[in-house]
Amino acid sequence: MTDTAASPTLALQDLHSSLTDPVLDAMNFLNEVVARFPEALSFAPGRPSEGTFETDDIARHLRSYTDHLEQARGWSKDQVRTHLFQYGRTNGIIHELVARTLANDERIHVPPESIVVTTGCQEAMLLTLRALFAGPEDTLLVSSPCYVGITGAARLLDIATHPVPENSDGPDPEAFLAAARGLRRAGKRPRAVYVVPDFANPSGTSMTMAARERLLQVAAEEDLLILEDDPYGFFVRAGSNLPTLKSMDRERRVLHLGSFAKTAMPGARVGYVVADQEVVGPGGRRSLLADELSKIKSMTTVNTSAISQAVVGGLLVECDCRLREANAGAVAHYAANLTTLLGELERHFPEERRRALGVSWNEPTGGFFLVVDVPFVADTKALEHSARAFGVLWTPMSDFYTEGGGERRLRLSCSALTADQIVEGVQRLARFIESQPPEPPTGP
Amino acid sequence: MTDTAASPTLALQDLHSSLTDPVLDAMNFLNEVVARFPEALSFAPGRPSEGTFETDDIARHLRSYTDHLEQARGWSKDQVRTHLFQYGRTNGIIHELVARTLANDERIHVPPESIVVTTGCQEAMLLTLRALFAGPEDTLLVSSPCYVGITGAARLLDIATHPVPENSDGPDPEAFLAAARGLRRAGKRPRAVYVVPDFANPSGTSMTMAARERLLQVAAEEDLLILEDDPYGFFVRAGSNLPTLKSMDRERRVLHLGSFAKTAMPGARVGYVVADQEVVGPGGRRSLLADELSKIKSMTTVNTSAISQAVVGGLLVECDCRLREANAGAVAHYAANLTTLLGELERHFPEERRRALGVSWNEPTGGFFLVVDVPFVADTKALEHSARAFGVLWTPMSDFYTEGGGERRLRLSCSALTADQIVEGVQRLARFIESQPPEPPTGP
Repeated sequence: MTDTAASPTLALQDLHSSLTDPVLDAMNFLNEVVARFPEALSFAPGRPSEGTFETDDIARHLRSYTDHLEQARGWSKDQVRTHLFQYGRTNGIIHELVARTLANDERIHVPPESIVVTTGCQEAMLLTLRALFAGPEDTLLVSSPCYVGITGAARLLDIATHPVPENSDGPDPEAFLAAARGLRRAGKRPRAVYVVPDFANPSGTSMTMAARERLLQVAAEEDLLILEDDPYGFFVRAGSNLPTLKSMDRERRVLHLGSFAKTAMPGARVGYVVADQEVVGPGGRRSLLADELSKIKSMTTVNTSAISQAVVGGLLVECDCRLREANAGAVAHYAANLTTLLGELERHFPEERRRALGVSWNEPTGGFFLVVDVPFVADTKALEHSARAFGVLWTPMSDFYTEGGGERRLRLSCSALTADQIVEGVQRLARFIESQPPEPPTGP
Repeated sequence: MTDTAASPTLALQDLHSSLTDPVLDAMNFLNEVVARFPEALSFAPGRPSEGTFETDDIARHLRSYTDHLEQARGWSKDQVRTHLFQYGRTNGIIHELVARTLANDERIHVPPESIVVTTGCQEAMLLTLRALFAGPEDTLLVSSPCYVGITGAARLLDIATHPVPENSDGPDPEAFLAAARGLRRAGKRPRAVYVVPDFANPSGTSMTMAARERLLQVAAEEDLLILEDDPYGFFVRAGSNLPTLKSMDRERRVLHLGSFAKTAMPGARVGYVVADQEVVGPGGRRSLLADELSKIKSMTTVNTSAISQAVVGGLLVECDCRLREANAGAVAHYAANLTTLLGELERHFPEERRRALGVSWNEPTGGFFLVVDVPFVADTKALEHSARAFGVLWTPMSDFYTEGGGERRLRLSCSALTADQIVEGVQRLARFIESQPPEPPTGP
């Protein structure tokens, strides 16, 4: 390994085509941009607040979980040791605790066996897409702008995605209906739709109750599955929680993708998918879709870290599987932050000023994100300038559109900031925005 | 979710074709068969010994890691907290400790940035295959019989594999050369070869020094990459350790796949891949292959659990990044077990007896596995019978052949048993083998 002069190189164009797709760069960018500008105030990543977390909590959660196994379930110390040390059940070891939590928090009542515990929600997306998408005609409809985790996973698996524009209330059932019919006419098989019904990443929009009901109808009419991703549902700022699609699902059309990254801790990398659909194989053999996902999971990560599951499991035990109540402080924090962010935007850009500049934003009723429309191209070049010259980071929205769009929009996340940082950050952002010469839209 | 009568079902044949591939069932089978026959003695799964592990070790390892960050690296408590709680570096946080360990244990000297820390070695395989295999003509050559983790991952990604029969010394460089040339003549692109050079799973075979050197030559001549998977290399029973292919690699042709499942603990799900190859993109932009793998990892698991990495990192800190020395007890345990297993087979089937029956086995110089040839079809049906009627489990070898073969062979693993269990297990196995009516090979 010293004679590197003789080493052949690999041509990027010879590697899988996903590696030259901007969507795969986007998430890396989101994860690593903060490190490049440590002095900047960052509205960029959707990081959760660390709240009251302390490093020693990890050991306490572990102990809560092992105590639960020994005391509530009567396991021996040897059984507990093996449970944490060894390879384990492919679909997870805390599925019963997750099922109880879903029943308490979301009124989702499913058998624990229909839950696949995954290495973060990202693996849940990967498994789900791999199982459901079989051929080149199978197409995933995504509400657009769309979280890059799902379009990126589809890209890895060479799965076709079809963006369906959201409206101001988020994912639009009528647009999904029209798109599914159009795809079918074009010889494609619309297989599933991906939506974030509550406070979507990136746009912050939420579906109305009527839109939820209608989307379930459309799915039934068009024989579509719904991939429901709901990491932000707890974090209501104004109004009340709406039910998840899964809790309204009478036909098992919804696969519910779950994350503990925002409600517990991202570092554990524990998520899950509820896959209670019935699969019929040769000879009428029946299985749960969760069992089929298990076969795939055995080839992606074998099983989710027992240690990580134990930490999240302990946290669930400590809150008696009522994670929503345990998140009361976090809910208040995010609501206050979003209110502060909206107030500061209003303060720096009062109505006349924003009209003159051509600046506007939406007002999400919860979650981590909002979107600002600006009169210039908000791309990575503009972002670098914003970071270097003004000390403020944000996320270009164009990353979230797979077929163009969002060039003059930027996403602000306020989840991991203090109120003071938001005040200072919006001041810097306002200076940056006002410094940018407006550019006319590039026409066709 | 109550009106299940109205629920549509999914047809297995409409799901991804990997789900009907036997290789995807095989690993689930290996992981879950033990649970189905809790009373049986099991030579089936390649589980590591739990050795001296105690549940409380996890908290100690965590503390060792955080102490290392605070004391050796001067981090603040806040930095440590964020490091464990938050989303982190896609390619891992313990890459420097892994690099030091590889230098100490394997004389593999690579920059930490060329290491991708993964959710078990299985994810390392998935990322590596996804990056390197771009089109339908790209083919992975695998030494056959072959570990199902690699063929299964290839199957998920619709990557073509081509089995290359091993010889009694394991992977056969001349057979790889001939296969690569044959594939090229058939219009395929042989892209990489997958080998387990030491004490392979499933066959227990090992490559000679000459075969290692020759395989590197063949790879250079045929412009192939080598995927080296070496989970069992520490566990020598007789003779001495041979160098890994990566430590002999002068051309960066080897991607070294690493696992902590056997040398630390499987429950943490931490592995890695050394990918120090140079990639050249448009405009001559250069990157490490590890950086390209990072883009893919951001769409499979985002990053490996910080908590799991901290546990393994702490264990590495505790042994001063000399994992081989830390495994001295494990090395002795596995060597003794394999010697016991071989001795008991010899005792039950002395030479005349085994000739009469048509039974034979190989004598690996280390690792967890050996293979027994038997005069009957050793399939899952025979296994169920063996478990139920004789109380002993083993693994059918046919799972490890992608294009047929191994029907009259079974794999024995002795890694997680005590000497007494091996003695009793071989007695049960001998009764089972003697009870089976020999079947003539089915001819063409």
